[in-house]
Amino acid sequence: MRSEAAWPLDDRGAAYGDGLFETILLRDGRPLLWDEHLSRLVRGCHALAMPMPAEHELAAPLAEAGNGLQVLKLTLTRGSGGRGYRPPVSPVPRLRWQFAAFAPAEAHWQQGVRVRHCRLRLGLQPALAGLKHLNRLESVLARAEWNDEDIAEGLLCDSDGRLVEATAMNLVWQRAGRLETPRLDRCGVAGTLRDALMERLEIHEVDIRPEEIEAAEAVWLVNSVQGVWPVIRLDDAAGIERQRWSLSPLHRTLQGEAHRLLGYPVS
Amino acid sequence: MRSEAAWPLDDRGAAYGDGLFETILLRDGRPLLWDEHLSRLVRGCHALAMPMPAEHELAAPLAEAGNGLQVLKLTLTRGSGGRGYRPPVSPVPRLRWQFAAFAPAEAHWQQGVRVRHCRLRLGLQPALAGLKHLNRLESVLARAEWNDEDIAEGLLCDSDGRLVEATAMNLVWQRAGRLETPRLDRCGVAGTLRDALMERLEIHEVDIRPEEIEAAEAVWLVNSVQGVWPVIRLDDAAGIERQRWSLSPLHRTLQGEAHRLLGYPVS
Repeated sequence: MRSEAAWPLDDRGAAYGDGLFETILLRDGRPLLWDEHLSRLVRGCHALAMPMPAEHELAAPLAEAGNGLQVLKLTLTRGSGGRGYRPPVSPVPRLRWQFAAFAPAEAHWQQGVRVRHCRLRLGLQPALAGLKHLNRLESVLARAEWNDEDIAEGLLCDSDGRLVEATAMNLVWQRAGRLETPRLDRCGVAGTLRDALMERLEIHEVDIRPEEIEAAEAVWLVNSVQGVWPVIRLDDAAGIERQRWSLSPLHRTLQGEAHRLLGYPVS
Repeated sequence: MRSEAAWPLDDRGAAYGDGLFETILLRDGRPLLWDEHLSRLVRGCHALAMPMPAEHELAAPLAEAGNGLQVLKLTLTRGSGGRGYRPPVSPVPRLRWQFAAFAPAEAHWQQGVRVRHCRLRLGLQPALAGLKHLNRLESVLARAEWNDEDIAEGLLCDSDGRLVEATAMNLVWQRAGRLETPRLDRCGVAGTLRDALMERLEIHEVDIRPEEIEAAEAVWLVNSVQGVWPVIRLDDAAGIERQRWSLSPLHRTLQGEAHRLLGYPVS
């Protein structure tokens, strides 16, 4: 199967964001965290009442992969048809893919990153929470809030003021010796590296106010493509510093666990 | 300018729903409520920080219109580029369009419609409220809640339990002699027929619980393509009847006002 070069105008993904995607790290053509990506797609297809393609269909693009590090973006939409918002009774999902050469931000692994709070609040939508669906305008607007290249990520709260995630990464921290991460059952995207770490480590899902992570011993941003970035400084949305963290051996523990899964260096 | 047949894979509309659309009723090639559609696009471009195309670019598709009733769907995305969710500094929006022959649901004008409450609650997102943007998964999921052809529309509340809209139409009712419609500053789409009616009639924007419209003298669903449907029966999400309304001359007043704007029959 060869990916077509484009989406038809009547594709429901292009029309309504009626679909899902996965961005998958490949090393010499081998997908990392493949099971976690498939399992999130399964959850997404179930939530959207779309048939899940067979694994061999989803894996077909891998035959086109090159050497070295690449990112494969798989996009699966509900296809064409239906009447307005009303989905077709028997949707025929459409799969497209794109490859991009990739170089991770190694300096962020080593030196840590500065992050800020975003002003935008995520709307609550339990029916879509955790999924990597194509309705990402909130992420786009949040990422457009800053242009300072020194700020690596922005933290997002939901409309009730609970901390949820960063614009393209998940948050994990250690507080009183306990690893924690925000619950993602009302909004947010459940990243596959977060999933993989939660399978291997005791990480507690919690409700938390943004100011509460300032007391954490260590804070990390994680995703399946970039790996793990220690957070060394947190600013508010106005650019005022809220907290700093010094890099410590503690930061390397979670990073090591994650980087072993991704084939990234462990310090 | 001729619309291309497809969206490139890297278009941000297809990738993230990063764009806007308008569905415009045409009668013999003449667009109805054109100013209202343009004005909503202007608001949308402003909210998304996208440049607004010149009116002559947006009107170019009209040269391809046929005779009779058609619906023109204009879709305007942020185009390609940027890095992940991060928008390009100088986006070059991409415009695509589609025509469809159209026949309005005349029986709904005359006999009124049965509607139901949806289970899905709309997330609160003031940054996008009122806009016809491409993140429409909530509308898709809500519309997928029922298959009964006797149910013409579903009513949606927000996550705080306030009544907002129907899946593809706006709500207007008369209560104690006063025309009212839900506020749309936290979520929902501000329809162009709703806008046009609010310019011409005294219609109050209110916060309302869903059960409160059961006391209305008349309830209508309105949009710029279908016109005005009187509501004659409202069910809850389980299909249990909540209220009935008899068609009366009162129903024909708002309908007449709207249908004169759209060139539809006035009874």
